[in-house]
Amino acid sequence: MSGNRRHISLNRPFAMHRGGELDGVRIAYETWGELNKRRDNAILLFTGLSPSAHAASASEDQSPGWWEDMIGPGRAIDTDRYFLICVNSLGSCFGTTGPSSVNPDTEETYRLTFPILSIEDIAQCGADVIEVLGIDQVAYVIGPSMGGMSALAFAMMHPDRAAGLILISSAARALPFAIAMRSLQREIIRSDPEWNDGQYQGHGAEQGMHLARKLGMVSYRSADEWKQRFGRERAPADEYRHPDQPFGIEFEIESYLEHHARKFSGSFDANCYLYLSRAMDLFDAADHGGCLETGLACVKASRVLIVGVTSDILFPVEQQRELAALLQVPDRELVFEQLSSNQGHDSFLVDMDRFRPVLSRFLNAG
Amino acid sequence: MSGNRRHISLNRPFAMHRGGELDGVRIAYETWGELNKRRDNAILLFTGLSPSAHAASASEDQSPGWWEDMIGPGRAIDTDRYFLICVNSLGSCFGTTGPSSVNPDTEETYRLTFPILSIEDIAQCGADVIEVLGIDQVAYVIGPSMGGMSALAFAMMHPDRAAGLILISSAARALPFAIAMRSLQREIIRSDPEWNDGQYQGHGAEQGMHLARKLGMVSYRSADEWKQRFGRERAPADEYRHPDQPFGIEFEIESYLEHHARKFSGSFDANCYLYLSRAMDLFDAADHGGCLETGLACVKASRVLIVGVTSDILFPVEQQRELAALLQVPDRELVFEQLSSNQGHDSFLVDMDRFRPVLSRFLNAG
Repeated sequence: MSGNRRHISLNRPFAMHRGGELDGVRIAYETWGELNKRRDNAILLFTGLSPSAHAASASEDQSPGWWEDMIGPGRAIDTDRYFLICVNSLGSCFGTTGPSSVNPDTEETYRLTFPILSIEDIAQCGADVIEVLGIDQVAYVIGPSMGGMSALAFAMMHPDRAAGLILISSAARALPFAIAMRSLQREIIRSDPEWNDGQYQGHGAEQGMHLARKLGMVSYRSADEWKQRFGRERAPADEYRHPDQPFGIEFEIESYLEHHARKFSGSFDANCYLYLSRAMDLFDAADHGGCLETGLACVKASRVLIVGVTSDILFPVEQQRELAALLQVPDRELVFEQLSSNQGHDSFLVDMDRFRPVLSRFLNAG
Repeated sequence: MSGNRRHISLNRPFAMHRGGELDGVRIAYETWGELNKRRDNAILLFTGLSPSAHAASASEDQSPGWWEDMIGPGRAIDTDRYFLICVNSLGSCFGTTGPSSVNPDTEETYRLTFPILSIEDIAQCGADVIEVLGIDQVAYVIGPSMGGMSALAFAMMHPDRAAGLILISSAARALPFAIAMRSLQREIIRSDPEWNDGQYQGHGAEQGMHLARKLGMVSYRSADEWKQRFGRERAPADEYRHPDQPFGIEFEIESYLEHHARKFSGSFDANCYLYLSRAMDLFDAADHGGCLETGLACVKASRVLIVGVTSDILFPVEQQRELAALLQVPDRELVFEQLSSNQGHDSFLVDMDRFRPVLSRFLNAG
């Protein structure tokens, strides 16, 4: 499953953005395509909260990646042309150091002793990876959702290392509705007795993670999509629906949520989820210079693409419009695309017919 | 606290809409104003999921009611002119029979032996109350939110008993987004070990109810309101914010949700909440005749007011527009008011400056 995965190990302490440091940091990444001789065809991709670095299949790992339809020879992110690098976020649990890793200094799992995680730390790990790969500047840094925050942080922290910037369904900082949804997810996980103040066995807080995933789905999709897809259809009497269970599943929408929660179950570490979720709340481009304007003025990328979806309630399209307005400066080519997908925040994962042409047009014009 | 509360007791079995029956049903209600000699000035008010029948203060109970600013002498619902009756819903826990009541046949608390609750049962209790009060027809039946579903059910089941109908932030049936939110609230409550399959002591599942209330607030208010009110303000270090608590409260929006959840805590029985919540999902005006059109065609009220709010995500304004379109028939005076309050579903409770004139105009024109 991880045959395409590579790692770098830092041989110096990693200073965290909000204080503290980590020893022996290891960063997992995958690559597709070939770095050219001028070393100027790299694309650095940051992920949303939960995916690994396995964005697409590869000869060493043919399982489909989380952005399979977007990446490959001749696809929107054309690996015949570009050398794509996808990094597993710091704080996650797919090969990169995080709260579920062992602290080399204590030989115990970090758990809640992991320092406060910031989006800037995730961005810095991307910079460390390209440095080890001998790349001074990437052609584009790309990210959807939380990955867009990481990509933006990268472009603000290392302005000379990003010739281009692509932000998808993302934002310069979280609004209170998104904070409320994530805060509630975190409280649901922490309320699960099996979370046990982070001292659990296995992935931890299975029931809490199950409920948090369902709440996540509510924020990732859209009311309109569900109205079209499910209406008031009853669920079939199947593995999920047990007529004798009080207040159990009755409607198709409930069965759909159950299905997605079970698919997610056991795939993600609870403490890692808490750290990454909180990092999204804390991120604020205004921290880089005092206000959003000065923060975003750090970005030097000459080509910028901002994409948003009208039905997104977690990162509403007004936030992408704000990014586009603030990043619009002379001598920069900026494209803002507002898509009318009805699948909400998740559209970049599922509405490929709308997203592929947008990325393809922009990357092929460059 | 309940000095204005009256009860009726049914001396016959109460047949539940979806099967089963209840013995010794007791229905709590409050009234304001005086019934006139022609007995034609009554207004029957159904409530949302969680309020009691105490809609407004009265000489026998001067504590403010849940719709205090709407009701009273000279107010929008003018108790100098109208005789207002507010009924505590069947299945609730403020004096009316519900899952937390003792089953007279077994002398044990109903808990999950309470039969499936339907909005139609709540409506029927309203009909039973006015019958005991000697009222053949009410001038208006009114309801906000779930109360609107109850009012609509009343008007479909007893068309000759409702001369007028006022539906506020309500719907002919729930859409999947609303079902998802409520289903998740119920699952959160059921996942609390203290719920104990409904066999708890006290109000039950305090932590689950706390989380369900927070999720409720997410669905009752609006992202735009929170953006205006809270932005990214940090919470003060107060009773809610404990800097040493991992993943505890950091932002003002989190403190706001905590405040509301604590206010609600211990005020509502967990099993009652589950039954009422599910009743809202199950209600479908189309059950009355096979489709929405035939269901709503049962209504005979000659004056109808439908009010909706553009920022409501739980009962979106399209649902009120649908009600208005389907209830628009010759010889009926129908008014549809779409309000631009930014406080979401809760606007009818908090945006009095917009709601009062709408009800006042309609009731005073009649």
